[in-house]
Amino acid sequence: MALRCVMAFLVLAAGSVGPYAADPLPSWNEGPTKQSILEFVAKVTREGGPDFVPVSERIATFDNDGTLWCEQPMYVQIVFAADRLRKGATIHPEWNERPLISQILSGNIKSLADAGEKGLLEVLAITHSGMTVEEFEKTVAEWLAVARHPRFHRPYTECVYQPMLELLAFLRAHGFKTYIVSGGGVDFMRPFTERVYGVPKEQVIGSSGKVKYELRDGRPILLKLPEVNFIDDRAGKPIGINQFIGKRPIMAFGNSDGDYEMLRWTTSGPRPGFGLIVHHTDAEREYAYDRNSFVGRLDRALTEAPQRGWAVADMKRDWKRVFPFDP
Amino acid sequence: MALRCVMAFLVLAAGSVGPYAADPLPSWNEGPTKQSILEFVAKVTREGGPDFVPVSERIATFDNDGTLWCEQPMYVQIVFAADRLRKGATIHPEWNERPLISQILSGNIKSLADAGEKGLLEVLAITHSGMTVEEFEKTVAEWLAVARHPRFHRPYTECVYQPMLELLAFLRAHGFKTYIVSGGGVDFMRPFTERVYGVPKEQVIGSSGKVKYELRDGRPILLKLPEVNFIDDRAGKPIGINQFIGKRPIMAFGNSDGDYEMLRWTTSGPRPGFGLIVHHTDAEREYAYDRNSFVGRLDRALTEAPQRGWAVADMKRDWKRVFPFDP
Repeated sequence: MALRCVMAFLVLAAGSVGPYAADPLPSWNEGPTKQSILEFVAKVTREGGPDFVPVSERIATFDNDGTLWCEQPMYVQIVFAADRLRKGATIHPEWNERPLISQILSGNIKSLADAGEKGLLEVLAITHSGMTVEEFEKTVAEWLAVARHPRFHRPYTECVYQPMLELLAFLRAHGFKTYIVSGGGVDFMRPFTERVYGVPKEQVIGSSGKVKYELRDGRPILLKLPEVNFIDDRAGKPIGINQFIGKRPIMAFGNSDGDYEMLRWTTSGPRPGFGLIVHHTDAEREYAYDRNSFVGRLDRALTEAPQRGWAVADMKRDWKRVFPFDP
Repeated sequence: MALRCVMAFLVLAAGSVGPYAADPLPSWNEGPTKQSILEFVAKVTREGGPDFVPVSERIATFDNDGTLWCEQPMYVQIVFAADRLRKGATIHPEWNERPLISQILSGNIKSLADAGEKGLLEVLAITHSGMTVEEFEKTVAEWLAVARHPRFHRPYTECVYQPMLELLAFLRAHGFKTYIVSGGGVDFMRPFTERVYGVPKEQVIGSSGKVKYELRDGRPILLKLPEVNFIDDRAGKPIGINQFIGKRPIMAFGNSDGDYEMLRWTTSGPRPGFGLIVHHTDAEREYAYDRNSFVGRLDRALTEAPQRGWAVADMKRDWKRVFPFDP
């Protein structure tokens, strides 16, 4: 009973979505996209209504790269890996003899992306393993503190989308549990998701490597191994959601074909389901890309959005502001 | 800020642990075990104190079999599997030709446990796969509704430990997030953990099989496959905790050597850590077993408990009441 009261309090404190309430999504322009979000949340939270969903089932999942933060001109984690290689190469000159590593060290970061899973594993083995989980967390936090986006000249954790931050807060205020479900590495995201998105570590699902428990100086450690454990992309997203949450989301947010299966899964359950695609259409304020982009390719999901009833947030049209640092 | 206020409210509403407050653990006898729990919770929740742990880091993990519910005379999930086999054998008489299945069908359930991983997989392939995750959930819920414990003649979900239910509620009232971390199958536990323990599905970590995303009649399904994905036992427990939560627990509760690594991991971090072992010493009210038991073998963890500073809940001595249905 106490928890129900608290939830009721939170919902009331968050204000209604009626015409006289303060706008909960001020960085979204008025229009059908914003309206569809507000209407869906209103109907699933209307107690006694036909589409009411209890708090415990209000699960919302968000992709990260390109949905919550900027993924252009290159996935942030790949930039991190290249920086780690550069730093390590100063004490490991022999790395230059490996063709792929040498390519990356000479500045061709995209070669990593082109190298497929085998190449990725070669780099992950060097940059993402051989240390404890705590040591890796510290490395990521230190890198994020100094790395800067090449165009916006700000920390990557500031290159996040203001409209999506508002959406995360809005959903939580209405009893939703917000999760990140990303193809990126879970250990790369967890160091910043609570501070930046208000999403605690235990609500972050991502790709992961295998980990080994062992004793070091008589104390247990968890050692990151150079082996893939789980790839949280495409069909891996609904599988990861089922494994970690065990409930089908009722709202899902993505921006690429990597989110297609998560959107399908979310919008084909017995309960009402809402899917939204962030469409990058604004080269001036951010980037414009979709069907032919190497990073964040969006093709099939965009084509099928109308027939599946998925909303499309057209960045140029729907977002009043893109980044928190925008005027 | 709102959330902080709410947490403060919950903590206040739960009452202090001082001498005049209502006893939060009425089914625990007074003594050093109960005292150690109360003192640990008091010190990590004392704002400004040297051992204070913020709410977001208050993670408590509980084993299930033998720690939260009765695991004797046989693990409940193995009884379930045997019942599934018996039911299926009526339409699959050819199963009787398989030695292991035939043994189980003739009532020798322990043969399954003796058959090792290969045997377990043979049975899991028949009983735990080939259906969607929702179909399996329904099967488990239906079975739990009718199955009865052979000695207590009650649903297995009533053969849970009253002192541990009080402990779960007590910790949550003090801002802890309570998790189940069990060697049992996650899909077998999730159908009842919220109702029985107040632990939602997303806070249940367990062993799992692989799952496949595919389309059936044009709609996505998640199909359970006859392949092991993850074994959440022994060193798998800290590994699973790291994978699902990404935070080191500050309290852990177990009853067998399968919990040894989880207890070590919990009590060797930079923060204060509390470990407790439920020791089954009460053949009259429940069962008495430890070092030589096939089910829930407790040997090394019991031996090392004093040197590691782990509390031992001696069921006979420390528990005023064992089950909720006890007088």
